[in-house]
Amino acid sequence: MGYSDVDTLAINTIRLLAVDATFKANSGHPGAPMGMAPVAHVLFNKIMNYNPKNPKWLNRDRFVLSNGHGCMLQYALLHLAGYKLSLDDLKAFRHIDSITPGHPEAHDTEGVEVTTGPLGQGIANAVGLAIAQHHAAGEFNKPGFELINNYTYCFLGDGCLQEGVASEAASLAGHLQLGNLIAVYDDNHITIDGDTNVSFTEDVTMRFKSYGWHVEEVVDGNNDLAGMEAAIKKCQAVKDKPSMIKLRTIIGYGSLQQGTHGVHGSALKADDIKQLKGKFGFDADKTFVVPQEVYDIYNKHSSEGAAKEAEWEKLLEKYTQSYASEAADLKRRLTGKLPEGWEKSLPVYSPSDDAVASRKLSEIVLQKIHDVIPELVGGSADLTGSNLTRWKEAVDFQPPSTGLGDWSGRYIRYGVREHAMGAIMNGLAAYGTVIPYGGTFLNFVSYAAGAVRLSALSQIRAIWVATHDSIGLGEDGPTHQPIETLAHFRALPNCMVWRPADGNETSAAYYIALTSQHTPSIIALSRQNLPQLENSTLASAMKGGYVVHEDKKADITLVSTGSEVGICVDAVKYLKEKHNLAARVVSIPCFEVFDVQDKEYRLSVLPDGIPSLSVEVMSTMGWERYTHEQFGLNRFGASGAYKDVYKKFEFTPEGISKRAVATVDFWKDVPNIRSPINRAFQQLI
Amino acid sequence: MGYSDVDTLAINTIRLLAVDATFKANSGHPGAPMGMAPVAHVLFNKIMNYNPKNPKWLNRDRFVLSNGHGCMLQYALLHLAGYKLSLDDLKAFRHIDSITPGHPEAHDTEGVEVTTGPLGQGIANAVGLAIAQHHAAGEFNKPGFELINNYTYCFLGDGCLQEGVASEAASLAGHLQLGNLIAVYDDNHITIDGDTNVSFTEDVTMRFKSYGWHVEEVVDGNNDLAGMEAAIKKCQAVKDKPSMIKLRTIIGYGSLQQGTHGVHGSALKADDIKQLKGKFGFDADKTFVVPQEVYDIYNKHSSEGAAKEAEWEKLLEKYTQSYASEAADLKRRLTGKLPEGWEKSLPVYSPSDDAVASRKLSEIVLQKIHDVIPELVGGSADLTGSNLTRWKEAVDFQPPSTGLGDWSGRYIRYGVREHAMGAIMNGLAAYGTVIPYGGTFLNFVSYAAGAVRLSALSQIRAIWVATHDSIGLGEDGPTHQPIETLAHFRALPNCMVWRPADGNETSAAYYIALTSQHTPSIIALSRQNLPQLENSTLASAMKGGYVVHEDKKADITLVSTGSEVGICVDAVKYLKEKHNLAARVVSIPCFEVFDVQDKEYRLSVLPDGIPSLSVEVMSTMGWERYTHEQFGLNRFGASGAYKDVYKKFEFTPEGISKRAVATVDFWKDVPNIRSPINRAFQQLI
Repeated sequence: MGYSDVDTLAINTIRLLAVDATFKANSGHPGAPMGMAPVAHVLFNKIMNYNPKNPKWLNRDRFVLSNGHGCMLQYALLHLAGYKLSLDDLKAFRHIDSITPGHPEAHDTEGVEVTTGPLGQGIANAVGLAIAQHHAAGEFNKPGFELINNYTYCFLGDGCLQEGVASEAASLAGHLQLGNLIAVYDDNHITIDGDTNVSFTEDVTMRFKSYGWHVEEVVDGNNDLAGMEAAIKKCQAVKDKPSMIKLRTIIGYGSLQQGTHGVHGSALKADDIKQLKGKFGFDADKTFVVPQEVYDIYNKHSSEGAAKEAEWEKLLEKYTQSYASEAADLKRRLTGKLPEGWEKSLPVYSPSDDAVASRKLSEIVLQKIHDVIPELVGGSADLTGSNLTRWKEAVDFQPPSTGLGDWSGRYIRYGVREHAMGAIMNGLAAYGTVIPYGGTFLNFVSYAAGAVRLSALSQIRAIWVATHDSIGLGEDGPTHQPIETLAHFRALPNCMVWRPADGNETSAAYYIALTSQHTPSIIALSRQNLPQLENSTLASAMKGGYVVHEDKKADITLVSTGSEVGICVDAVKYLKEKHNLAARVVSIPCFEVFDVQDKEYRLSVLPDGIPSLSVEVMSTMGWERYTHEQFGLNRFGASGAYKDVYKKFEFTPEGISKRAVATVDFWKDVPNIRSPINRAFQQLI
Repeated sequence: MGYSDVDTLAINTIRLLAVDATFKANSGHPGAPMGMAPVAHVLFNKIMNYNPKNPKWLNRDRFVLSNGHGCMLQYALLHLAGYKLSLDDLKAFRHIDSITPGHPEAHDTEGVEVTTGPLGQGIANAVGLAIAQHHAAGEFNKPGFELINNYTYCFLGDGCLQEGVASEAASLAGHLQLGNLIAVYDDNHITIDGDTNVSFTEDVTMRFKSYGWHVEEVVDGNNDLAGMEAAIKKCQAVKDKPSMIKLRTIIGYGSLQQGTHGVHGSALKADDIKQLKGKFGFDADKTFVVPQEVYDIYNKHSSEGAAKEAEWEKLLEKYTQSYASEAADLKRRLTGKLPEGWEKSLPVYSPSDDAVASRKLSEIVLQKIHDVIPELVGGSADLTGSNLTRWKEAVDFQPPSTGLGDWSGRYIRYGVREHAMGAIMNGLAAYGTVIPYGGTFLNFVSYAAGAVRLSALSQIRAIWVATHDSIGLGEDGPTHQPIETLAHFRALPNCMVWRPADGNETSAAYYIALTSQHTPSIIALSRQNLPQLENSTLASAMKGGYVVHEDKKADITLVSTGSEVGICVDAVKYLKEKHNLAARVVSIPCFEVFDVQDKEYRLSVLPDGIPSLSVEVMSTMGWERYTHEQFGLNRFGASGAYKDVYKKFEFTPEGISKRAVATVDFWKDVPNIRSPINRAFQQLI
């Protein structure tokens, strides 16, 4: 544990890189990097195993900066460590199209494990990374082959601790006894509003102990490098609890404004920088300076990391000889590709098959595919029996000491913690060995909006099994009946929202969700039974939209999703019999997938020359993109038996027909009706 | 504290009402009502002050059922206590259009203070109610006049405790030393997924102590009525901390399945009900039975409550004599109406005024109106200096012992707790004496989606000051730049989303938000400066949409909001000069308000015969309802100076013009272009 002047030099180098970069950008957060530079240096230069030449090495230690606004700290470390991040990249901090954006983005920047910034997400991601590590160890480690044993480190600040998502994740982490998770709490007493005593006076140590965490404290987080290293090592030794180190630091250490919120969220003044560089023994006229001896000690540590990886690769080679199929499975998983032929296990249906609730159809899919896709790891936010997310033979992911499951278990009991579930899924997916799915009611995916947004932004394959997807849930009433939810997530870029209408559409939704490596999916599923449709096939549903019922002489196209498609099919008969109108029916289970089909196909589904009416029992917002008129529910629902609720709001063949007649009438004088598929120009995507 | 057989009878009556109602509805949650009936009886029959004849009595004790799925408990109590809730209403449990829906809804059912069911919300609402009580006491109580001293009681279960929103609220409640808040935790060891040991093994007592709560425990929550009463009274006596009673109960007490999740979420079987009624000494063949002696003890307690209210009204009368203006202010506030003439304080602007960021314009509004609207109580989720939510003279709402403010303070430091802030605002508004507003970045209103939804459903006037409302926030980058957020909340029924373009529009947004007693508002505000527009007036902006720049011979209408309206105005010139096209410009700061204007007016703004193009730097979803073509951002943003980001995505006069030209070209062959305002039929609202 010998620390010397070069360590101090390295720490001050990191501080000044953050100072210079925020000054150049005239924006950003110098305070946290300056305060956390010492512990960051200890961690990155003395503790963590990583190889910058192979940032994807499976058994590398993971680092998450939950207080993502302090990202200049992370960028500085990645640069020193030798990742693909140059001094020029640091100079381009917060500039358009740089790899050093205002908050760290995993898909842009090598060495950034997860995208952080929205507070509380990172620590929950870290819990996910740690779960994945424990799970992979449970699945792949063998006697004599401790293939997977990395640690997950997470820095977080007061803001993260105040966010509910962090509380949810921390409580679950304690329950799960995630020994390889070590968090460092930057206890600097400052938030944007000033001293933490204006809103945050809880006893954090006691709180984390109540969750079942091990807690260490380091009182001098500015200078006591040996103390920090000792604390981290003590935490490493605690194998049956996650650990937190409460580290007392001074925000903006060295600045004239140190210890105040003045250094939190804006660049230091020129004068302040001058005195700071003087104090640290740097040339006040130079910027972005990295002394060679600092590079040297980081090169040395990275070389050690590379050597450790080389050793590990040898271990993997030996493992491959002894455990060929496990090794092959592991290597395949890391490519992100599914096992060949897995899709043959997807159930297919014909119109004569029974009507089945799509949540049940989803259960059948999971039951059929779980053994051909061993990386599928699911769970539910305490609605297992309602979401139907657990296959019969599933083993729970639990610490073996609980007697309730084991580390290799593939079913996670998330508790009533939707937001943490979403953020943990992001961490699970980022680890590389599993594909996560999680169940809750569609309405409560909204609780996790912050995490879903980050799945989409950071291009993560996470799957939401979102049951009870409409007023069709019936008696639970308006508090549980989604109205705005589909519009919300359809408006979110890079997020697939599926609302399958029958068995084949449900299988198609899973097919696309599972094979889309860089996009999250929300699969909205019914509580009530749905009939199997005439022209529904996996192939057609995989196009995101298709014709369920064709009629070349139709007066109108009815366009619908999920539970309303079957009612539209019934409306076709009603329209013919009562109004002598012919109707086509189109199902669009997924806007996002339909949108990327070629225009000719889309126009064949939604052709020119005929008016169209959308039918979906929730907000009509967004349907104007596909149809001329919209029938939906731009109000809250009602508590009652689902058939009564549908009837109240006229989602019946009669109610649909009434609006179809109005639509035909309204459009009858328009010559050459243009399909909404035709647009004046392409959108930016 | 004498408890006798009639108390047991009352408790079993409550249990059986819940059993009969869920059986009749064939749906619902009997377990929690059966387990919590004893403590509920103690609370409603021995402790709480209320008068069912005046459910709006200001100083009544408040009751919140955070585990709202157990609402048959609440309905049974309201019935016994003499609220407007008959046996027939109990029989209509979970039936269409009843006042006894599947979860309690405040706007439907007298005696229900807040709408609950989505877990975690209720306890956060209770924190809001308790803050409002402490605040009102701080404002209105005078020596000799303890006008306001009610308690807020809240029941909650494991599910609520797992939700992050509850953690956020509980931490803040501890910080704020809310002595009049008493929570009862139904520690029944059961959630939907089974025993709590599958996911929830934290030490709840220690956790709440870490937040600064006082904790009592009652080990026999099924029988120890005196113990429950004693615990509640001990909590009442603790004046400087909120209190929690950890009550060990058996879910579904008395059922053959008691203590299992089998009684959580579905009706008991007929046989089970039979044995239960036998065990409790009730006639197994009768349903919905209330023995007269049970009514009698509840009538007695309600009469005592009425007497207490009468006494209080006398106190108020005396108070009115001594403190006339305070009394008048209080009485006015309870009507929900603002002081006469307050609107004269709203700032107005003319086109020659400086360009100002709309977040700054919002600050000016708050500065100007705070002393004419004394019930305005604001705060921020730790972004005060960015949201600009605090007027200069503001005093913080803080326990006086902290030295940081006092109970009458009108500025709440929420900490980084957006979701709790939303739910607390719902509680604040429900109390009756304040109008709450809260600030955060627009992107992080999504963290509070669950609470915003309940504001809308339960018709609560809460105002979000949502700054940094687009890619215009610049350097913070995509993690902080909203894309889907406006579409999300525009799709939410009964929620006004404002995006003002200048000073007058900002004032108009506040006017409508403050005078809409039954609707929440989200006011999206820019970080960057915006010019004052030509035809913008308070009156026009209050219509939700109006013509900013008219041209009777225009080739196209540009329709926009917020920061893009000014760019559209610049595009008019560009289009004229470079393309010889004439353009009108329309601003629609609020869809919801524009939608309720008469059709003639809406058609004057968005007329037939001319194509239209919307311009907004976020998801185009929803704009098809107003315009023929849409220019927006259906992808994530970028980190950089805001002008660079706007340029990258072509939100410039040139970029808009390019799309305007394409729009004119695309629509030129269509005769009699129809405004999207024309629809085939009315939507259900």
